Amino acid sequence: MGNTHNDVGSNVTSVTVAQLPGLNTLGISMARIDFAPWGINPPHTHPRATEVLTVIEGRLLVGFVTSNPENRLITQVLEKGDVFVFPQGLIHFQKNVGNGNALAIAGLSSQNPGVITIANAVFGSNPDIEVDVLAKAFQVDIKVVQQIQSKF
Amino acid sequence: MGNTHNDVGSNVTSVTVAQLPGLNTLGISMARIDFAPWGINPPHTHPRATEVLTVIEGRLLVGFVTSNPENRLITQVLEKGDVFVFPQGLIHFQKNVGNGNALAIAGLSSQNPGVITIANAVFGSNPDIEVDVLAKAFQVDIKVVQQIQSKF
Amino acid sequence: MGNTHNDVGSNVTSVTVAQLPGLNTLGISMARIDFAPWGINPPHTHPRATEVLTVIEGRLLVGFVTSNPENRLITQVLEKGDVFVFPQGLIHFQKNVGNGNALAIAGLSSQNPGVITIANAVFGSNPDIEVDVLAKAFQVDIKVVQQIQSKF
Amino acid sequence: MGNTHNDVGSNVTSVTVAQLPGLNTLGISMARIDFAPWGINPPHTHPRATEVLTVIEGRLLVGFVTSNPENRLITQVLEKGDVFVFPQGLIHFQKNVGNGNALAIAGLSSQNPGVITIANAVFGSNPDIEVDVLAKAFQVDIKVVQQIQSKF
Amino acid sequence: MGNTHNDVGSNVTSVTVAQLPGLNTLGISMARIDFAPWGINPPHTHPRATEVLTVIEGRLLVGFVTSNPENRLITQVLEKGDVFVFPQGLIHFQKNVGNGNALAIAGLSSQNPGVITIANAVFGSNPDIEVDVLAKAFQVDIKVVQQIQSKF
Amino acid sequence: MGNTHNDVGSNVTSVTVAQLPGLNTLGISMARIDFAPWGINPPHTHPRATEVLTVIEGRLLVGFVTSNPENRLITQVLEKGDVFVFPQGLIHFQKNVGNGNALAIAGLSSQNPGVITIANAVFGSNPDIEVDVLAKAFQVDIKVVQQIQSKF
Repeated sequence: MGNTHNDVGSNVTSVTVAQLPGLNTLGISMARIDFAPWGINPPHTHPRATEVLTVIEGRLLVGFVTSNPENRLITQVLEKGDVFVFPQGLIHFQKNVGNGNALAIAGLSSQNPGVITIANAVFGSNPDIEVDVLAKAFQVDIKVVQQIQSKF
Repeated sequence: MGNTHNDVGSNVTSVTVAQLPGLNTLGISMARIDFAPWGINPPHTHPRATEVLTVIEGRLLVGFVTSNPENRLITQVLEKGDVFVFPQGLIHFQKNVGNGNALAIAGLSSQNPGVITIANAVFGSNPDIEVDVLAKAFQVDIKVVQQIQSKF
Repeated sequence: MGNTHNDVGSNVTSVTVAQLPGLNTLGISMARIDFAPWGINPPHTHPRATEVLTVIEGRLLVGFVTSNPENRLITQVLEKGDVFVFPQGLIHFQKNVGNGNALAIAGLSSQNPGVITIANAVFGSNPDIEVDVLAKAFQVDIKVVQQIQSKF
Repeated sequence: MGNTHNDVGSNVTSVTVAQLPGLNTLGISMARIDFAPWGINPPHTHPRATEVLTVIEGRLLVGFVTSNPENRLITQVLEKGDVFVFPQGLIHFQKNVGNGNALAIAGLSSQNPGVITIANAVFGSNPDIEVDVLAKAFQVDIKVVQQIQSKF
Repeated sequence: MGNTHNDVGSNVTSVTVAQLPGLNTLGISMARIDFAPWGINPPHTHPRATEVLTVIEGRLLVGFVTSNPENRLITQVLEKGDVFVFPQGLIHFQKNVGNGNALAIAGLSSQNPGVITIANAVFGSNPDIEVDVLAKAFQVDIKVVQQIQSKF
Repeated sequence: MGNTHNDVGSNVTSVTVAQLPGLNTLGISMARIDFAPWGINPPHTHPRATEVLTVIEGRLLVGFVTSNPENRLITQVLEKGDVFVFPQGLIHFQKNVGNGNALAIAGLSSQNPGVITIANAVFGSNPDIEVDVLAKAFQVDIKVVQQIQSKF
């Protein structure tokens, strides 16, 4: 089982073309997601893949934000055996809302789906995105931007 | 010219299949981006398209964050006539760093590229993403999350 | 859990565009495969998808037959947590070789992958394929063909 | 003309990227099929291509088995000049039902379509598929499986 | 056989999605080309398909003009049974250079390949392309343009 | 600005994968087209891309010839800021019909769109296409063909 003793209480184990070269050109990959109680898989996107997810154990709150129309949040609570889909490139997340651990398996429609964890990419890039760009984008003081950047 | 009297000092005019139905199935669309002095086009992604951009007037700082390796920031300053590419689904932004207004034209590799403005999608979705999910993801207090959400 | 009290000792539960219309155009689907002890998922193909499979419980012998070079059999025994890929359109099968039940989850690179169970399609089509075609193809007496056809 | 003095009375001459490297990336290939009187092209699939076929000389019975709905057999008798299509990955066959030889030309929607002759792949793979898997799949005695395997 | 009593001495019989609706979404179509002695299939392109061609009867001179590098002419004389490929969108032609009639079969990598006969599209469009555009493009007098236009 | 002191009074500056290797696999490229007064961009096709074009300065007459139905000419006069689309592989052209210079930017749906300038490819290939093929295709005397060929 994946180690979920971290800040977000979840662990993703991916099998993409980097781990399984035989996937090359085949347009598919897979991931296992382990959740500690109340653990989350934070908002992220896969730039090159749609994700279909099934709950093996536990209960998950899942959600994604649409782009057409803009910024509609779609959520659902999934029980063991339920299946949900996150369309390509949309921001999505999961949260363990059951009692105990949870486990989900995801299929992704690319051998190289990529993952962009939003908070880390925006506030933890190397080098940092200029603070004034982020301050304007998130409509906060530059100090708040710097404070968040210092965490990543 | 697009009206750039807004918080971010830029205006995007898109021509996708929604504006020009003849684009349907043809896999291409276009956008014009006007910038006021020091205006920015805030961090965003196109979930279904790569973008190629050329500067018609002015000087732009452009950047995107990679997914392989994770969270590397790539930036460049573009002069009039320069061309740059933002790969599909990656977070990117532009900032007017010249004297005066700037103008850029972008081509996008889908008739329906979509746009996800990161700050708006994460902190301004309707309904809101749960505050504890965002607090864990951005490693800030729930108060900070609520403060940012109140702006969108 | 799927009902595995059948001739082959396995049960496939598919979630494709037929069950989840939201998958349309997204190029992905999913299946759950339950195995009784020594149950098999008989030789079959997916005409429009590659399959990636992970073992959730138990131990599976998996195999597929290549087309380039022709008719090479590739097999592997998968333990819990292992991942394997069946390239698009190739004949493949799984067999429970552990003690007790087994469970696997598969991702498929199409919202409409299709499934062709070889024995059923060849000897159980409606109407039947002409016996002389099958007799020549399988190099057996017409009586053997008729005997197998009578089972489907 | 292809040599049709063999067990099935037909000969396939393929021109794919293996024979004509210039086809690489172009998504098309071609085949010529010669039939002796009453010769058959036994049930097979192309895992990566749809096939369109036209009869140049003679009369052919052609057929394929659907996957949606499962296992429906579609057949037609083609005269000289007729055209028919076998959708990607579906099991199909042809049989010479005219007087004398027959000739057909096929186009395939991939430079590397592959071919899986069902009987040979299932009963003649190297190494053999385990007999118990085939016995369960085809609902026959293990002896019958071994007898068929010995022919390939 | 196609009627080849026309100005160019050839006749093309196409089977695309317009003639055979079952081809829809399958990415393939077919054409038969009959040639009178010394007949030509004049320079044309298929805007949405690569073409692979085989000679059934006779001897053909075939050629296409490359785009990378620009305007290189590639030709070959094909005997009965030979196969040749015309990459997507490139201008190509065939000419019967044997004694007697000739027959070729082509496969095309789209169910809707389209055909643009260059001379007809440029000088015979409805309405006509402005004469000054064609005069500049072909570097001839406007009178020559008008003379050619009058033929189509 | 591109040098437009040439026979056709226009200049195309392309940025494809040949100029910007980072475009590889990304399915997009871009071009800038400068026009002298009354300059034309002569009839041409892009064998592997659809083009979307926007006018930055001036007024352009644009047109393309359809393939379904055959040889219909579609034209439009574009003012500054207008956008138009030329579907993949179709013959198209632009003509400066304003007072003064004109400038347009195009996006193309391939990193390697290719360009086939019709007159140059047909009458200026290396080696030449046989004169009798062109004479029959364009329905002119061989002398006229030779005269046009001598210009390229």
